[in-house]
Amino acid sequence: MATIKDIADRLGVSVSTVSKGLNGAKDISESVRQQVLDTAVEMGYKSKRRSKDHKKKLCLFIENMDFESVNQFGYEIILGFKQAAFKERYDITVLPVSSEFQKNESYDTYMLRNHYSGSFIVGFSLEDPWMSQFQDTKFPTVLLDNFVEINKNVAYIGTDSEEGIDMALDHLYKLGHRKIAFLDGSVNSMISDQRMSAYLKSMANHGLTIDPDMAVYGYFVADAAKYHVPGFIDKGATAILCGNDLIATGVIAECMTLGYRVPEDISVIGFDDLPVSQHLNPPLTTVRQDRLELGKCGYYILDNLMQHVSLSKNLLRPQLVLRESTAEAVEREVIKHEEEKDSVINQNVALYEQTSKKALIDSIQKGLKD
Amino acid sequence: MATIKDIADRLGVSVSTVSKGLNGAKDISESVRQQVLDTAVEMGYKSKRRSKDHKKKLCLFIENMDFESVNQFGYEIILGFKQAAFKERYDITVLPVSSEFQKNESYDTYMLRNHYSGSFIVGFSLEDPWMSQFQDTKFPTVLLDNFVEINKNVAYIGTDSEEGIDMALDHLYKLGHRKIAFLDGSVNSMISDQRMSAYLKSMANHGLTIDPDMAVYGYFVADAAKYHVPGFIDKGATAILCGNDLIATGVIAECMTLGYRVPEDISVIGFDDLPVSQHLNPPLTTVRQDRLELGKCGYYILDNLMQHVSLSKNLLRPQLVLRESTAEAVEREVIKHEEEKDSVINQNVALYEQTSKKALIDSIQKGLKD
Repeated sequence: MATIKDIADRLGVSVSTVSKGLNGAKDISESVRQQVLDTAVEMGYKSKRRSKDHKKKLCLFIENMDFESVNQFGYEIILGFKQAAFKERYDITVLPVSSEFQKNESYDTYMLRNHYSGSFIVGFSLEDPWMSQFQDTKFPTVLLDNFVEINKNVAYIGTDSEEGIDMALDHLYKLGHRKIAFLDGSVNSMISDQRMSAYLKSMANHGLTIDPDMAVYGYFVADAAKYHVPGFIDKGATAILCGNDLIATGVIAECMTLGYRVPEDISVIGFDDLPVSQHLNPPLTTVRQDRLELGKCGYYILDNLMQHVSLSKNLLRPQLVLRESTAEAVEREVIKHEEEKDSVINQNVALYEQTSKKALIDSIQKGLKD
Repeated sequence: MATIKDIADRLGVSVSTVSKGLNGAKDISESVRQQVLDTAVEMGYKSKRRSKDHKKKLCLFIENMDFESVNQFGYEIILGFKQAAFKERYDITVLPVSSEFQKNESYDTYMLRNHYSGSFIVGFSLEDPWMSQFQDTKFPTVLLDNFVEINKNVAYIGTDSEEGIDMALDHLYKLGHRKIAFLDGSVNSMISDQRMSAYLKSMANHGLTIDPDMAVYGYFVADAAKYHVPGFIDKGATAILCGNDLIATGVIAECMTLGYRVPEDISVIGFDDLPVSQHLNPPLTTVRQDRLELGKCGYYILDNLMQHVSLSKNLLRPQLVLRESTAEAVEREVIKHEEEKDSVINQNVALYEQTSKKALIDSIQKGLKD
């Protein structure tokens, strides 16, 4: 591992200048300091400062996620992480970060400058600027619901979407539902892709026909329902599976606006089991993610990475929580609409490309023809 | 949780009889004892005996895997598990179990009778009798390279086959190989299926045509090579990816028997990085599984299960170890064979059914037609 002397030699400055740069002393210029930090990161230097003052520091970076109140998704994740890390006497910083913040400084430089030993990354989308930097980071980093290939310093923790969606769909199937729509979350999210793949796979395993118009990406907000629920209903959907509980809230409201009762006419299932789910009308059947456990395991996995045990993918069991938004299927008349054939095919292709299956199918079909 | 009193009430016997049955006292009949144990298991009774004598016991059950010498696959897995568990003062039993052994007594009864708190299951195939019992077990159980759905008491630990196979195939692709065969392990193994899926996916992602005759299941033994390597070579394969190092050993030998040099004519890659890999001629390029870490993580995950944290899938990073069995591709003339079209199609169907993709593809195609 690079030492302070190595950095000094590379830059042609004194060891004391490098030391000042790393420790934020005021008597060197900001530009020299930045050069010291950039070079230290490039050379893979890691601070040993914590061995002096016995303070071990971790950072939880959070973005795109509410966490202030107990009803919000991030609250228990942070709580669980803190509970597990405090036992090992870590100091935890919880830092909400914007896209702008990430553009201002590289991840490794930020970690080094602030003497963090590792971090937990929560709520990042595929478009967040630091996402590409995690591919090469030297710092132990656990990502909630995101995955980076090959880099041994980075691990992924999440809930098993495949099992969760399959449980939900199986529950609907056993209630007699055959036309089951899926309103997923945003496109630029790894878990949306996972849940879409899981839906396609589970539909296929249950022998059900997949209608691309009934498997769509929306956004992780309630409003997504307005654009898609009318189409699902026109096509005869008797049940709507949702990418999360917020979407389900919107779906229930939209069904009611259109004059359909939940669950008598249409069954609805959410994902997450936010505290609000049990207070909806009707109380929501949903796939529970145990957020306290997600936070705790975030720490356990980070602890393993800091000890050079490179766990890379770690999934928690989901749990299907049965409430009152699902009931036996009642078939409805399908309202027929004329549609452009081309447009349907284009949608299909886009859908399968998004779910990464198209390349596989093309290749297998090519193999079958050859 | 059921108490000794509950069991006594159910059976209509005294508490002391139940206690004797659970603790293996000699002064009750074997049939009464078995009835006590069976009822205790059925009612989800868990022994609290360890709180008396302060001995915490775990069992590592091992099947179909050599582990006695440091060169064998299981050796470091057991070592890692013991190292991690000893720190927490657990007593570890390592117990080789046959299929017969599993048929003689149910898993939960065995665990209860021997006062184990949890177990690590290593080397089991899908056909092992206890595999179906893990779906309902009440005991914290970690499976190496096997997965059970829904049951919160059971978790899966392994190495990420998808990333490992993709690394290997990418390495071959960059060396110019386009006709890459895959000789997988046995059919009745979850990791064989994973690696086959990973191969198909990686081939597709690299834009390569999948030839079903070049993607076959063999057995996890060197002899599998004799049956398949001649066919791969006839079809023009310039590289052969193998389901493990033993298979690769056979593939190298078979190539030489047929008059082809490794790596000059044909590149070969293994999986596992057994100690013997570096002593082969040529030394084997392979995907490393860190078996010491697998063992340690087996304990960490079991510890989580025992604390009711239900991690379900946990994968370690693989590592591509470059040695001398891979080199730049040299195209060879393809020897043409006449083949029965029907037989090829049947093989295709069998292959895709095995890899669980066929149902998905059928369903998507059906959706496209509708």
